[in-house]
Amino acid sequence: MLNMLAVTETVKNALEEDLGAGDLTSAALFTPADRGQGIIVTRQDGIVAGLPVAELAFHLVPPGCTFTPLVSDGSDVKAGQEVARVEGPLPAVLGAERVALNFLQRLSGIATLTASYVERVKPHRAKICDTRKTVPGLRLLDKYAVRMGGGANHRWNLGDAVLLKDNHIKAAGGIAPAVARVRQAIPITTKVEAEAETLAQVVEAMEAGVDIIMLDNMSLPEMRQAVAMVSGKALVEASGGITLDRVAEVAATGVDLISIGALTHSVPALDLSLELI
Amino acid sequence: MLNMLAVTETVKNALEEDLGAGDLTSAALFTPADRGQGIIVTRQDGIVAGLPVAELAFHLVPPGCTFTPLVSDGSDVKAGQEVARVEGPLPAVLGAERVALNFLQRLSGIATLTASYVERVKPHRAKICDTRKTVPGLRLLDKYAVRMGGGANHRWNLGDAVLLKDNHIKAAGGIAPAVARVRQAIPITTKVEAEAETLAQVVEAMEAGVDIIMLDNMSLPEMRQAVAMVSGKALVEASGGITLDRVAEVAATGVDLISIGALTHSVPALDLSLELI
Amino acid sequence: MLNMLAVTETVKNALEEDLGAGDLTSAALFTPADRGQGIIVTRQDGIVAGLPVAELAFHLVPPGCTFTPLVSDGSDVKAGQEVARVEGPLPAVLGAERVALNFLQRLSGIATLTASYVERVKPHRAKICDTRKTVPGLRLLDKYAVRMGGGANHRWNLGDAVLLKDNHIKAAGGIAPAVARVRQAIPITTKVEAEAETLAQVVEAMEAGVDIIMLDNMSLPEMRQAVAMVSGKALVEASGGITLDRVAEVAATGVDLISIGALTHSVPALDLSLELI
Amino acid sequence: MLNMLAVTETVKNALEEDLGAGDLTSAALFTPADRGQGIIVTRQDGIVAGLPVAELAFHLVPPGCTFTPLVSDGSDVKAGQEVARVEGPLPAVLGAERVALNFLQRLSGIATLTASYVERVKPHRAKICDTRKTVPGLRLLDKYAVRMGGGANHRWNLGDAVLLKDNHIKAAGGIAPAVARVRQAIPITTKVEAEAETLAQVVEAMEAGVDIIMLDNMSLPEMRQAVAMVSGKALVEASGGITLDRVAEVAATGVDLISIGALTHSVPALDLSLELI
Amino acid sequence: MLNMLAVTETVKNALEEDLGAGDLTSAALFTPADRGQGIIVTRQDGIVAGLPVAELAFHLVPPGCTFTPLVSDGSDVKAGQEVARVEGPLPAVLGAERVALNFLQRLSGIATLTASYVERVKPHRAKICDTRKTVPGLRLLDKYAVRMGGGANHRWNLGDAVLLKDNHIKAAGGIAPAVARVRQAIPITTKVEAEAETLAQVVEAMEAGVDIIMLDNMSLPEMRQAVAMVSGKALVEASGGITLDRVAEVAATGVDLISIGALTHSVPALDLSLELI
Amino acid sequence: MLNMLAVTETVKNALEEDLGAGDLTSAALFTPADRGQGIIVTRQDGIVAGLPVAELAFHLVPPGCTFTPLVSDGSDVKAGQEVARVEGPLPAVLGAERVALNFLQRLSGIATLTASYVERVKPHRAKICDTRKTVPGLRLLDKYAVRMGGGANHRWNLGDAVLLKDNHIKAAGGIAPAVARVRQAIPITTKVEAEAETLAQVVEAMEAGVDIIMLDNMSLPEMRQAVAMVSGKALVEASGGITLDRVAEVAATGVDLISIGALTHSVPALDLSLELI
Repeated sequence: MLNMLAVTETVKNALEEDLGAGDLTSAALFTPADRGQGIIVTRQDGIVAGLPVAELAFHLVPPGCTFTPLVSDGSDVKAGQEVARVEGPLPAVLGAERVALNFLQRLSGIATLTASYVERVKPHRAKICDTRKTVPGLRLLDKYAVRMGGGANHRWNLGDAVLLKDNHIKAAGGIAPAVARVRQAIPITTKVEAEAETLAQVVEAMEAGVDIIMLDNMSLPEMRQAVAMVSGKALVEASGGITLDRVAEVAATGVDLISIGALTHSVPALDLSLELI
Repeated sequence: MLNMLAVTETVKNALEEDLGAGDLTSAALFTPADRGQGIIVTRQDGIVAGLPVAELAFHLVPPGCTFTPLVSDGSDVKAGQEVARVEGPLPAVLGAERVALNFLQRLSGIATLTASYVERVKPHRAKICDTRKTVPGLRLLDKYAVRMGGGANHRWNLGDAVLLKDNHIKAAGGIAPAVARVRQAIPITTKVEAEAETLAQVVEAMEAGVDIIMLDNMSLPEMRQAVAMVSGKALVEASGGITLDRVAEVAATGVDLISIGALTHSVPALDLSLELI
Repeated sequence: MLNMLAVTETVKNALEEDLGAGDLTSAALFTPADRGQGIIVTRQDGIVAGLPVAELAFHLVPPGCTFTPLVSDGSDVKAGQEVARVEGPLPAVLGAERVALNFLQRLSGIATLTASYVERVKPHRAKICDTRKTVPGLRLLDKYAVRMGGGANHRWNLGDAVLLKDNHIKAAGGIAPAVARVRQAIPITTKVEAEAETLAQVVEAMEAGVDIIMLDNMSLPEMRQAVAMVSGKALVEASGGITLDRVAEVAATGVDLISIGALTHSVPALDLSLELI
Repeated sequence: MLNMLAVTETVKNALEEDLGAGDLTSAALFTPADRGQGIIVTRQDGIVAGLPVAELAFHLVPPGCTFTPLVSDGSDVKAGQEVARVEGPLPAVLGAERVALNFLQRLSGIATLTASYVERVKPHRAKICDTRKTVPGLRLLDKYAVRMGGGANHRWNLGDAVLLKDNHIKAAGGIAPAVARVRQAIPITTKVEAEAETLAQVVEAMEAGVDIIMLDNMSLPEMRQAVAMVSGKALVEASGGITLDRVAEVAATGVDLISIGALTHSVPALDLSLELI
Repeated sequence: MLNMLAVTETVKNALEEDLGAGDLTSAALFTPADRGQGIIVTRQDGIVAGLPVAELAFHLVPPGCTFTPLVSDGSDVKAGQEVARVEGPLPAVLGAERVALNFLQRLSGIATLTASYVERVKPHRAKICDTRKTVPGLRLLDKYAVRMGGGANHRWNLGDAVLLKDNHIKAAGGIAPAVARVRQAIPITTKVEAEAETLAQVVEAMEAGVDIIMLDNMSLPEMRQAVAMVSGKALVEASGGITLDRVAEVAATGVDLISIGALTHSVPALDLSLELI
Repeated sequence: MLNMLAVTETVKNALEEDLGAGDLTSAALFTPADRGQGIIVTRQDGIVAGLPVAELAFHLVPPGCTFTPLVSDGSDVKAGQEVARVEGPLPAVLGAERVALNFLQRLSGIATLTASYVERVKPHRAKICDTRKTVPGLRLLDKYAVRMGGGANHRWNLGDAVLLKDNHIKAAGGIAPAVARVRQAIPITTKVEAEAETLAQVVEAMEAGVDIIMLDNMSLPEMRQAVAMVSGKALVEASGGITLDRVAEVAATGVDLISIGALTHSVPALDLSLELI
């Protein structure tokens, strides 16, 4: 479910960053013949994500460790629960530990945060989805963690979907001509989304045949009306400052999607640690 | 104050990640002759950090933009305040926007969070410092942001300082032999820190001549006693689950350093946006 | 219209490949004070594509040259016509020449080939589009050249659109369950295409709500029927061994798209050369 | 026979280009436990080349596949013939398929095209050789394919052999001084070739002791005369617009080498496909 | 003791540099079925260093060789002694040979040179240490070899320790203010060293609380006095043009450290060769 | 004369290696507004080489310095002579200083060492040439420095010339069949050299038509005889343990080339330093 070829580069770079000139402490005190065994335990309830990434970290520090996940990504875990075991030369276990945990804590943090939003909107059709507000360098992983938390992904980057904002619309002289021009230029496999600030724009976008209409900071009654007007002819996305407190009422308007920047830009890490045994 | 040579690679990778096959929307609707002007505004009070990084992002998207910071990194900014202006070809302004903001929001978030801890310990000697719990790939930048928030940096990575934890100490047969062995192996410019879980270990570490003693999850009275015992012969660092609520009382024990993982692992982004004018 | 940040890497690598240990001949006989002027001329009629890429090559060989395009990408050029001029230190002009031409000849070759297909289908609605059968490493550029020849792009790669082939459909137990499962997993901005080998599958795909239906090696009458059945509810793509001779009759069936692997896998270079003056 | 260390980078980059954010379709429908078996079949007669490159592609997509070549590179294959088998987790088989085939089709196309020229000149001593008109990024592989088709390689790049063109010769004041100056500057292991546009220049080049003389767009009688004059004291290379139709008569003049840009700049792919069983 | 993750990149780059387009000679004459066995023998007495690096070279040339070290790094070896054996496909053995030896000869040369200095200062407390005068790209390996020769490392680079030179001191208005300012800015784990040209500066540095005082080109009596004055409150380092002839008398002054640029900038290779059997 | 595109990568990597997390000392004490001026002075007589590389280092540390060479590479310089000036922001001057000098000292050391050999053989026709015994990563630069010292280059790597050693010859069943087989496989622009241990092998090689014959550890009389026998039909190279003391008598035998591994494997740095003014 993850492009492990791409992730390998990311993990290798993270290890190089954290090893620097090498692990001075372990190098002075251990040999590869000193073996270590550790358990990765969560100290908080949450959704775990990133175990294959942590595994890769333990594999990539020479000469490598054995990593055994005890749950799979996306699992609900409880404080105190063991999520994985690792075994190998002590210098490798300790050399990969921090990097493995840094990935695991962030990705589990994202999954857990996403799940809290998903939980609130359960009675409704709305999907919780992410944005491009990810940490530079971790776009693929951050978005994977959103999926593990039950959320959906919005576009990967500027090159795989179109999002028409007011500047684009002004430059083209309206939503309809903007859509016409982008359809000429983009891959035939690419969806077009337009931002609408008013119900008039919702209509314009719908008539222009966009695939998704983003309701930008609309009130709840406006959203409800937009949903009714669009009536399934396009996906309707609510966007703009939607917090955990407000998400249920937004979902209740009937929108298809609710995008939340905070899922990836303001992430409390899930508290996980490695205990050597 | 930042190694801009190293940061250039990080920013270039972030741009490639966000541009993907290219900005489909702008490419279809704008030419480089369409110029844009934008203001970066904060919507929250906080400490700004990362302006040179944002500047680099706007420079690196061909054919580049002009970026004018209006405050310097480390400045206290108020909601609604303009922090920078950018001017250039609209496809470049929009092509760099999200990456610039992603860096700026995270780094300003770290600086702001750090400053809140620093504020609480002001009457005391204690410095607030970071850990290796940074986002993979952004170690240098995360730690730079901590400095911008008034905090201090702990070691960069496993290769520029020694931290003896209980496993190392056990393997060597005590703090004294562990220190002796690492001193033999490490650069003469490298400091040695040891973790102490008891006051007896504090004494042992002090007598072994370590440079820094980390008090691991000690109670406030123990910390006070440790500070008294060490009495300036080494730096004393408090560590382990210290929250904003507890940080002042920890600082009051007289420790030199308080390390806080959350400064970089659980960062609420500062809300900054680019407004086109 | 091209992601020049990404293209810069590609051009730099091509130059390193062609320079090897350095241009032995020029180094022995010229100094940077020897200036050269050249004209890039086409010896065949065709569509030119890749001038910004050629320009980059001439810029990137130290100390760089001045490059002046005389036509823009996508222009129809006639045998003997000048397409660009270059001026600079002779070692740089000659050091970049072959790489610049290698890009220009391939990309112009693709544009010219594409245009010949586009010409044939002009009376019809069908767009000519490319596939993933591009030269390894040049995906972005090959597809850009298709656009310059008047063609459209199909998906960039395996990660920005779904294409359900028979294996996927079998594994899922039919088109409908396959579509349902992928919609759950993919970004909300991603289109779904399904391959249909029979008219029954066309119906099944249409009812499953796919965005594009690929008619795999169907006969002309079948295609016509498929178009009628789908009747605008999805895009219809003809695919499989469609040659220049047959493309007009395929277009006449009313399909929306005709994908041609040969546009990028079997490209006769356009004959362009640099003449020093 | 191929530098597999260098090729590994090329294949890895090609896979990253084609996988993008990951194979969305397979990820949604298969697990690594779903196994697949495929046969690579040629649909055209030709010379196969690139099997070790295809093998690498199937190995490098995690967790990797087993690849069994059924013929070796350089073999003559007939339409319908199986050239290799692959077995492994279905997501890996399908994730590597297109990249493997893109390499294999191009390289087999080059080998096949080369062989058609080689066939024509068989009664003569002339070798068919390539140029630097290769696809950017694939120089090593394109030239390997030429060898597999029975051709010979010309220089790798600007740094491993000298080719004196008219500009160089003019700058130095003649072939003799040009040769003298380059011999002073280049590795003692490096050959020198000079372009000759007239028979007088052929004599001049021969007397200057060059290793190879390139006859630039000469007529057949001139070529014959040049061969006679040189009489084995240097290699004689015919160059310039030599097509399949004309190649035999050029070879009949007695030249040692005939260089053909089209071998790598205008390559019809050999039609190979992967059939899942 | 070496960061093998980082070293792997260095070795891979070295192999690519030496293989170029591939080993033409072996490719023409051997197949991977031709096996070779070789012994690495030293032709001079010395200290061997770099065996794990050589091993990596033999592993990384596809399809890899078996490497068996017969001594460990840091061992004293005698002319004629075997230090390692290698076995594998002949093209791989010969393809890695030169790179493996280039590393091994340089690193053993450094270790041997270092050991000759260490030997001279044995009766004294002084450690021989290196500088940043390493070969560009081999910093980690050069410094590793110094350790293998019994020497100590000085700082890795400009980012893991502070060295105040006269320019810094002048800019800050004296050693004390310079130290105060750097302590504010640097990680709490970082040591500060100051250069002293006079005994007055030694006192000033000591009082400013620096960790190390570098005596810059002082006379022997001055050094002795400096040692007495500092009296263990900081490490004392002698620096500047100290040769093998003079090193013992410098050590006799009681300094803690003697730094020698020549250890890494003027290294006679140890004469090692691979003999095929 | 140097491939500056390739060298740029090498210099950038060297700077990243030496800057690490950034120059802590300068960052704490200087701002980019503090300007510095420096002179690079040699403290020894020798041949300078590497000034364009040093210049690049000063350019590449942001925001860059102005570098003015006062002599050109290959110049004979005397102790005390200024070779270049540099001016710019003090943090950039100091940030690039060590890397610039590390390149300059090594390359000038190689040029100086080479020149000492060249001087000894002046009355004779023999050229002094290098080997592949260069420092890993610096092949191009090391060989450039040899040229600056008046030496010639041997092959760049395993891919641009053939050298038949005894293993190759044995495997092929003699020099003649070995030559025949490699000629079939290698580029037509590639020279073939064979190692000869006996005069019989010299004859065999000459008759096989090799371009260069390497006399492996032959006695002076044997060398003289070999030269007479070959009599200009191939280049004759003397190789194996030739020291400065013996080089003149080897040259006197009439060989064309004398290859010396020590030129690049055992290099005393030329003593150059940067003096700030």
